[in-house]
Amino acid sequence: MQALGKHILVEFYGCNPEKLKDTKMLQTEFENAADMSGATVVDSTFHTFSPYGVSGVVVIAESHLTIHTWPEYGYAAVDLFTCGDTVDPWKAFSYLKSVLESNNTSTIEMKRGQLNDFEGQLRHKPACA
Amino acid sequence: MQALGKHILVEFYGCNPEKLKDTKMLQTEFENAADMSGATVVDSTFHTFSPYGVSGVVVIAESHLTIHTWPEYGYAAVDLFTCGDTVDPWKAFSYLKSVLESNNTSTIEMKRGQLNDFEGQLRHKPACA
Repeated sequence: MQALGKHILVEFYGCNPEKLKDTKMLQTEFENAADMSGATVVDSTFHTFSPYGVSGVVVIAESHLTIHTWPEYGYAAVDLFTCGDTVDPWKAFSYLKSVLESNNTSTIEMKRGQLNDFEGQLRHKPACA
Repeated sequence: MQALGKHILVEFYGCNPEKLKDTKMLQTEFENAADMSGATVVDSTFHTFSPYGVSGVVVIAESHLTIHTWPEYGYAAVDLFTCGDTVDPWKAFSYLKSVLESNNTSTIEMKRGQLNDFEGQLRHKPACA
């Protein structure tokens, strides 16, 4: 069965808490991770929470990367959702694991948009208007 | 086992294709859906793709809502990721199902950030700095 998207749900445990607080660094590194996986960055928005913790999103032409951090637990929830054959979200995963210095990860890969009755090649959005 | 977040992965099939192309309406309705579920909107960014299709993200204080649409297949991939006890992402789900006029949905609810060895109450990010 064909699917439009590939979505990796990542739990990064045992991270360096300082990395999970650094909003500016996380934004830069998430954009780097998108580049590295072959994705095209369209936009990104990262926010710092009180007393600490970061939420961030990179919108890519091929869907999105997101992160939510809990420095107090050394934990980050990361989603790597990509479409098309030219992007490899696992490259972003490996890079971000290293960036966050996570020593314990859990991942689930889901197929998104499974079309039972469609024949031919599935398209993803190729370019931002 | 306690978890920091609740993540609903939604496949909306059989949607009205015109709804899936309307970037401005989708942004407004996703912000409405966040409000309705009890979440606090921090930021949102929606983009139109060529020839059609929309990607959008609403960052909430309690994590995020995202959508990616394929009007040509009547399909939208939606993620509703929330933290804390005061937000009910299923309210957003019901509202968005109606907005998109989806006649066929598939949902999976995942727990995010399951902490085995933590005792006490888990916190989510209460306020944007």
